[in-house]
Amino acid sequence: MLLVMKFGGTSVADIERIRNSAQHVKREVDAGNRVAVAVSAMAGHTNQLVSWTREAFPEYDPREYDAVVSSGEQITAGLMAIILQSMGIPARSWQGWQIPLVTDASHGVARIDRIDGQAMLESVNGGEVAVVAGFQGVSPGNRITTLGRGGSDTTAVALAAALNADRCDIYTDVDGVYTTDPRIVPGARRLPRISYEEMLEMASLGAKVLQTRSVELAMARGVRVQVRSSFDNPDVCEPARAGLAEKRGTLVCDETDMLEHHVVSGIAYAKDEAKIMVLKIEDKPGVAASIFMPLADANINVDMIVQNLSEDGRTTDLTFTVAAGELPRALQVLRDRQDDIRFSELRGDTDVVKVSVIGVGMRSHAGVAAKMFHALAEKQINIQAISTSEIKISVLVSAAHTEAAVRTLHSLFGLDQS
Amino acid sequence: MLLVMKFGGTSVADIERIRNSAQHVKREVDAGNRVAVAVSAMAGHTNQLVSWTREAFPEYDPREYDAVVSSGEQITAGLMAIILQSMGIPARSWQGWQIPLVTDASHGVARIDRIDGQAMLESVNGGEVAVVAGFQGVSPGNRITTLGRGGSDTTAVALAAALNADRCDIYTDVDGVYTTDPRIVPGARRLPRISYEEMLEMASLGAKVLQTRSVELAMARGVRVQVRSSFDNPDVCEPARAGLAEKRGTLVCDETDMLEHHVVSGIAYAKDEAKIMVLKIEDKPGVAASIFMPLADANINVDMIVQNLSEDGRTTDLTFTVAAGELPRALQVLRDRQDDIRFSELRGDTDVVKVSVIGVGMRSHAGVAAKMFHALAEKQINIQAISTSEIKISVLVSAAHTEAAVRTLHSLFGLDQS
Repeated sequence: MLLVMKFGGTSVADIERIRNSAQHVKREVDAGNRVAVAVSAMAGHTNQLVSWTREAFPEYDPREYDAVVSSGEQITAGLMAIILQSMGIPARSWQGWQIPLVTDASHGVARIDRIDGQAMLESVNGGEVAVVAGFQGVSPGNRITTLGRGGSDTTAVALAAALNADRCDIYTDVDGVYTTDPRIVPGARRLPRISYEEMLEMASLGAKVLQTRSVELAMARGVRVQVRSSFDNPDVCEPARAGLAEKRGTLVCDETDMLEHHVVSGIAYAKDEAKIMVLKIEDKPGVAASIFMPLADANINVDMIVQNLSEDGRTTDLTFTVAAGELPRALQVLRDRQDDIRFSELRGDTDVVKVSVIGVGMRSHAGVAAKMFHALAEKQINIQAISTSEIKISVLVSAAHTEAAVRTLHSLFGLDQS
Repeated sequence: MLLVMKFGGTSVADIERIRNSAQHVKREVDAGNRVAVAVSAMAGHTNQLVSWTREAFPEYDPREYDAVVSSGEQITAGLMAIILQSMGIPARSWQGWQIPLVTDASHGVARIDRIDGQAMLESVNGGEVAVVAGFQGVSPGNRITTLGRGGSDTTAVALAAALNADRCDIYTDVDGVYTTDPRIVPGARRLPRISYEEMLEMASLGAKVLQTRSVELAMARGVRVQVRSSFDNPDVCEPARAGLAEKRGTLVCDETDMLEHHVVSGIAYAKDEAKIMVLKIEDKPGVAASIFMPLADANINVDMIVQNLSEDGRTTDLTFTVAAGELPRALQVLRDRQDDIRFSELRGDTDVVKVSVIGVGMRSHAGVAAKMFHALAEKQINIQAISTSEIKISVLVSAAHTEAAVRTLHSLFGLDQS
C-alpha cells in the first residue's frame, strides 16, 4: 500500500514524541508499505512565531507572516527525517517549495492549486520515506504561503490525492471521532466509521479533530482518511493492509463504505455562538433585507433565523445568530442603520450554545426533529432557534443547558455505550 | 550609495533589538541610500536547533541539519521585513533559494558558487529594502545548504559583491576591531582602518569579530567592510556618504586605502592551541616526515614547529602545535606509529597560548622580531616556539603569561591609548 501519515503538533512536541511517531512510520515501512509523512510544527511553536509577528507589527504583511510561521514545520520535517534515518529507514524532508506544492497567493489562508509530486513519488517508489513540511506551500510568485491553522491536515489529504495513496492516516492526540464530547458524556463511543458529510458537520460544529477544509478535499478527491492516536504503542498496532476492518481510530469515508447505518451518528455542540434580537420592527416586505444586507456587506455570517409575529399584529421580532467574536461589530452595523430598520430595541446575548444532531440516516428517517424537540421539552429545555440541513438539526439553547441537552440527545438516539 | 547592512545574532536577539537594528536601516534609507540587509538568527536560536538535531541522532544527515538550522535566519528575515514596513519602509524577505544564492553541496560548510541577484537588485533599485536570510543557500540539487557558523558575514559580503555595493556594514555587539582584547589591555584602541590581510590574521588568531571566510571573500572581491556596533543610538549616527573618513567602527579595506601606517596594528592571542613534544628521536633524514605525514593523513593541521639538537648529537627533539581539540587524536596517531618514529617520550600540553604581533608595516620594517623577543625576555617570558608570516610574528608562551605578554607587546609597539 501507499500510505500518507500525518502527525500533529502534540505528536511531534519534542524529540521523544517525534521518535515515538517515527516508530509508527517504521511499523508501516517494515510491513512493506510505501510512506509519505506530513508533519505539523512542535506544539506551541507556531503560537510563539505568530506572537512574534504580532509583536513586530499588528498589521503585519501576510507574506512575511508566512515566511516566519512556516519555519516550524521546516524544523520538524528535518528532525523527523533524521530520526527515521537513525532507525535505518531512508528518508528525506521536502519543503513546500521543493515539491513544489503550489498554492494561490492568499497568504495565511492559501488554497492548494496543484502538487507536482513526480520527484517525490519517484523517491517514495524508490523506498525513501518523504517527510513533507505541512501547512506550507509556494505561490506562483515564489513566495512561501501557509494554508491556515490546522493546514497540515489539508497538506496530508492533498498529498494522498496527488500520490494516489491508498489511505491518509491522521495521527493526533485522540483515538478517533466520538459520538459526542466524552468530557460531557462519559459513555460516548468511538465511531469506527463516519461519512465525509457527517464529519464536515462534526468538524464545523466544534469537534476539532480535523480541519474542515481537509474533509472537503478528502470528499472531493475520494481520499479515505483514518483518524487515530499517535499515543498508541507503535509496537502493538497492526500495519495497514487492504481490506475494510479498522480496529483503531475512525475511518472517514464515502457513505457507501459505511458498515452500519445509525439514524444519528453524533451529537455536536458549539459554544462560540451569539444571539441577536431585533425587537418591534415593522412587519412589511423588505425589513429583513434592511437587516441582513448590511451584515452581509460587513462580511458577517448569519446562521439561525427566527421571526415572530408580535402581539399587536403590525410589528415583528427577529432573532438570529452570529459567531460570538462578531457580536460587537454586528450590533454596531445594525445601530448605524437604525434610521432604516427602526427597531424599538436591539439585544445581544452570548450565553447560548448550539446543539446539533448529525447523521446521514436522517435523510431517510422522518420524525427525528419531532423526537428531538419533544425530548428537550420534557427536560424543560427551551429552544430559542432552529436550523436544519439534510443531515443535521441544530437548536439554540441557553448555555446552562449544554450538558443536559447533549446527554439527553445522546441517550435518545441510542448512542450511549451498551 | 548602495549599502549592504548585516546584523548579527545579538543585534536581532528579540523584537526590540530587531526594531533598534531596523532604525539603523531607516537612517540609511532616509538619507537616500539603497539597502540590502542580511540577518543572523536570534542569539541562542541556532544553538537550540543544533542541539535538537544532535538529540535526534548524533550522526545526523547534514542535508537535514541544514533544513533545520537554516530556519532561524528565515524567521529573523521575515520579522525584520515586517518591522521595516511598520516604519513605512517598503521591504521584503529573501530566502537563499528565492534569490537564488547557489552554493556547492557541502552541507553544513557550503561555499557560495554564484548569486543570481537580478530580481533582488531590481527590487532594491525600485526602492524596496531586501532582507536576506543569512547563513543559507541552495544546492544545485535544490536542497537548503548552510555556510558554517558565522556564515551570515559571508552572506553579507557575497551580496555586496553581487550587487556591486559601495560598502558592507557589519553590525555587531562590539564597536569595531581593537588593537587587542580590551579585557586584557583596558587602553586598547579602536582601529579606524585595518587591511584585509591584517584582519585575516586577527580573525584566524582569535579576534572573533568577522568570520575568516568573509574576510577572504571581501579581499578577493574588493568589498569594503565596515565593522560597527548596532548598540549605537541609531538616531545620532551619521548616514553613509561617499568619502573616506569613518567616525565609527573599523573599515576593513585594501592596504592602499589605509590612512596611517603603523608598523604593528594589533596584538592577538589564541588559547585553543596545544603543544606536542616528541623527545629523543633519531636525527636522520625522513624522521620529520614519519611524524608529519601520518598527522596530515589524519587531517590534523600542524602550526608551529621547532627542532632542537639534543646533547648527545645523535638524537633530536621535535616540538609543534595543533588545535587543542585535536590533541588526543594527534597523540594517538603518533603512538600508533611508534614503531616507525621510535621516540623515547611523547608529551602533550594545552597550558600554552599563541601571542601574535600583526601589521602590514612589518613588510618594510626590519627588527620587529628582535625587538619583540627582547621585550619578552626582559619580562622573563620564555618563548616555546615561533612562527612568522610576511605580516605577523607568533610566539608560543605558557598560558600563565598571556596577559603579561599581550600588555608588554601592546606598549612596546606604541598601541596604548595616549
